[in-house]
Amino acid sequence: MTLKDQLQHKIDNKTKPIGSLGLLENLALQIGMVQNTLSPKIEKPAHLIFAADHGLADEGISPYPKDVTWQMVMNFCAGGASINVFCRQNELELKVYDVGVDYSFPAELPVINAKVANGSRNMRKEPAMTAEECRAAMEAGAKAVREEAAFGCNTIGCGEMGIGNTSPSSLLMHKFTGISMEACTGRGSGLKDEQVDRKTRILKEIAGKYNPTTPEEILATFGGLEIAAMTGAYLEAKKQNMLILIDGFIATAAVLTAVQMDPAVKDNCVFCHGSDEKGHKLMLEHLGAKPLLQLGMRLGEGTGVAVAMPLVKSAVNFLNEMSSMEDAGVSNKD
Amino acid sequence: MTLKDQLQHKIDNKTKPIGSLGLLENLALQIGMVQNTLSPKIEKPAHLIFAADHGLADEGISPYPKDVTWQMVMNFCAGGASINVFCRQNELELKVYDVGVDYSFPAELPVINAKVANGSRNMRKEPAMTAEECRAAMEAGAKAVREEAAFGCNTIGCGEMGIGNTSPSSLLMHKFTGISMEACTGRGSGLKDEQVDRKTRILKEIAGKYNPTTPEEILATFGGLEIAAMTGAYLEAKKQNMLILIDGFIATAAVLTAVQMDPAVKDNCVFCHGSDEKGHKLMLEHLGAKPLLQLGMRLGEGTGVAVAMPLVKSAVNFLNEMSSMEDAGVSNKD
Repeated sequence: MTLKDQLQHKIDNKTKPIGSLGLLENLALQIGMVQNTLSPKIEKPAHLIFAADHGLADEGISPYPKDVTWQMVMNFCAGGASINVFCRQNELELKVYDVGVDYSFPAELPVINAKVANGSRNMRKEPAMTAEECRAAMEAGAKAVREEAAFGCNTIGCGEMGIGNTSPSSLLMHKFTGISMEACTGRGSGLKDEQVDRKTRILKEIAGKYNPTTPEEILATFGGLEIAAMTGAYLEAKKQNMLILIDGFIATAAVLTAVQMDPAVKDNCVFCHGSDEKGHKLMLEHLGAKPLLQLGMRLGEGTGVAVAMPLVKSAVNFLNEMSSMEDAGVSNKD
Repeated sequence: MTLKDQLQHKIDNKTKPIGSLGLLENLALQIGMVQNTLSPKIEKPAHLIFAADHGLADEGISPYPKDVTWQMVMNFCAGGASINVFCRQNELELKVYDVGVDYSFPAELPVINAKVANGSRNMRKEPAMTAEECRAAMEAGAKAVREEAAFGCNTIGCGEMGIGNTSPSSLLMHKFTGISMEACTGRGSGLKDEQVDRKTRILKEIAGKYNPTTPEEILATFGGLEIAAMTGAYLEAKKQNMLILIDGFIATAAVLTAVQMDPAVKDNCVFCHGSDEKGHKLMLEHLGAKPLLQLGMRLGEGTGVAVAMPLVKSAVNFLNEMSSMEDAGVSNKD
């Protein structure tokens, strides 16, 4: 029997009707396949937040001022953001990386300095990043993952903080899926209808302004430093054979980018939460992914990952801990 | 300001875009209202499984033999069922009550003996329970809840084990919602199409055979001992002002019954999981409820409650632990 058949046999012989644990069964099968074992384990799960600013924020495409990026990083350091609360609750090690925030954090703060630039450029005027900046941000993400792997972590999530970062995500989605700019553009952190219309017009203008061709060029032109870092992180996590926990719209934009460079990344991805941000549903459909949760959340930081962590553990736990029909002496179907 | 306004103000001033924690925000508001406080707490959460047999199982309306009821109770005692795994993981105190299993459990096992009868009667021939049996089973559920309340538990879930128990649940749904017997009848633990047709014909025959009028009479006629126990448990949990965590199809049939007797029960209910059992979606719509999870599970035992427990804690935790915009020095919308 192949490992896949052995895993399915193990799942089907647990003391429950066949298939009755739904998505948790698919998840157990996937984790077993990723870890190449009938008894997978979640080891030292970690959650990495990458923070960066966006030149495009100058165009008023977010309802919040750009300063909120560094202010929220300070809030992560103080332990007061939602991602802090959920990582504490669900025992994810949380690390915060500055890959491009337009602010100098005091050295004593628990922010890891991996700054590539003080933010991406205003795409209305020039590409978001140079090829070198984009590569450096991807490497910052990859390095962050290698460090966790060295500690024995086998399960990783990523989150982000960057005022304005739904815009580059919409652009990457549009470029990599071919879906219309209108369908890719949403309210972000809370734009009103007419503001969404304006954001869409600006993004259409930007989408038509450049003609990059390779995935790396597309990422550099339309992305952001934290999105490039997440892309690098996902690619490295696949190389390290980690289970990769995916959050919402921005994280999935990084996945769309990463799978252009290595389609096998997807095998290790668990899509944790279907976001309320408009384009996310279409992104997930494009990837053929069904999210574990649909709580109507839309605040980034990787909160979808952190709240879904117990479900990932539940999948592993039932596979390892439930009795089989034979062992428990339970009769099977007539 | 009313408590509701104060809670909403507290939620809206957390360091996140307004509304961006989705269902967790609704849940935090609900729990604050139930506990009448701005700082709710989940104290000593407990999960009660009520097990009973069904005379109707003699008619072959389940793909599993009736013996599976006692065998699964033995499995609960040994810690090998999915509900054991998920309660251990998410720190729910698990107790198993025999309210009507057709088996004598050895006294040393951790099954609490609250047996009313050796199963309900075959409804094709006579009502499932006498009025006295139904009342005794409801009281067994209520007593179980009072005991947890006495220990300081303020959050309770219920699960069930009883081969054949989707049939009484479908009948109760049909009687209390007026939805057609066809739409109320599903595959249970895995019937094939033609078996579902047969089950539906039998349930239609039963639905037309009796004419009870009060909710208590309807429950006694068409219910089951564990469903009556859950109904009694929910009514008592409301009296004790507990947060009540609701599982899938059978648990929701008990909620439909309980709200006939005290509509305010619903205020305390958190619907944890939308089951794959056919009628559950319609039940939830009838109650105007949106479940936290939709994992495609359909195995009862209260597994939906146990896997959703961390989300309930997340709702409470963000309300208690997240910083406000003011405290964190984060700028609000422009």
